[in-house]
Amino acid sequence: MDLENYIATIKDYPQKGVLFRDISPLMADGNAYSYAVREIVQYATDKKIDMVVGPEARGFIVGCPVAFELGIGFAPVRKPGKLPREVVSADYQKEYGLDTLTMHADAIKPGQRVLIVDDLLATGGTVKATIEMIEKLGGVVAGCAFLIELDGLNGREAISGYDTKVLMKFPS
Amino acid sequence: MDLENYIATIKDYPQKGVLFRDISPLMADGNAYSYAVREIVQYATDKKIDMVVGPEARGFIVGCPVAFELGIGFAPVRKPGKLPREVVSADYQKEYGLDTLTMHADAIKPGQRVLIVDDLLATGGTVKATIEMIEKLGGVVAGCAFLIELDGLNGREAISGYDTKVLMKFPS
Repeated sequence: MDLENYIATIKDYPQKGVLFRDISPLMADGNAYSYAVREIVQYATDKKIDMVVGPEARGFIVGCPVAFELGIGFAPVRKPGKLPREVVSADYQKEYGLDTLTMHADAIKPGQRVLIVDDLLATGGTVKATIEMIEKLGGVVAGCAFLIELDGLNGREAISGYDTKVLMKFPS
Repeated sequence: MDLENYIATIKDYPQKGVLFRDISPLMADGNAYSYAVREIVQYATDKKIDMVVGPEARGFIVGCPVAFELGIGFAPVRKPGKLPREVVSADYQKEYGLDTLTMHADAIKPGQRVLIVDDLLATGGTVKATIEMIEKLGGVVAGCAFLIELDGLNGREAISGYDTKVLMKFPS
């Protein structure tokens, strides 16, 4: 299945000069959504994954059905103030200054094998911060899966050393 | 399965006097998460649902695996500015003033039968705004499913006339 046909491209969103890749047509199509989720499940199958972790909000859309299909749990990565119990946090570089992500401190148990799932690998800032939190909690990042990789933003270099699966590539 | 055992209760979050019901232990447990999703899928099975709609962000965590298991698409309800293409919007009452939600204008086709899924039914403001947008697009709200209903906040009255399924009830 050509998943690329289910990605909308929006010029100058969220700001001028950016080509935004919108996964909502893919999510809206039962066959395409199911196909994409199953591709990630297949990638994960022999990795003995204990937990899926995904950053809000599109990481939930891709990661939650993956966790469900694997029969395992899902732990969300959220912006500060969104998780009600004790958290760990990690900063990452955005275009202008730092931003922070959090996870519940009990989200990952030491030794658990974790699959990180998100819609998009761009500069890799979000996934690097996610890896940092998982490892702080004693988890093992056994794989990273993305619907889309944007070429030319060095996201892959940011997570070199971590097993990575990408379903589609687009120019940035 | 007693899903109630997988809900954490946090006092005075996000503000004093509120008992926050946290679904993250449920999501973290593969068996409980799977059980909850399958209960909603079973509720939906004879309703000929075409699309699942869920509000960000916890509605994604519950609704996306439901859509996947039903083999249909998922359309997100998001805060203003988060969806890149043409949207419809609806306002709803929060404790202090109005808030706005949006959906893509092509998220629902006229005549499509929609299941709304969210983690929590409290005052019903979010789900009422979601129903308003779905009906504006010509969709038919065939059911609403929630993990948790908070008693005493009149959420059920806010959506009377719509078929509703709740997996757990807690005092507010």
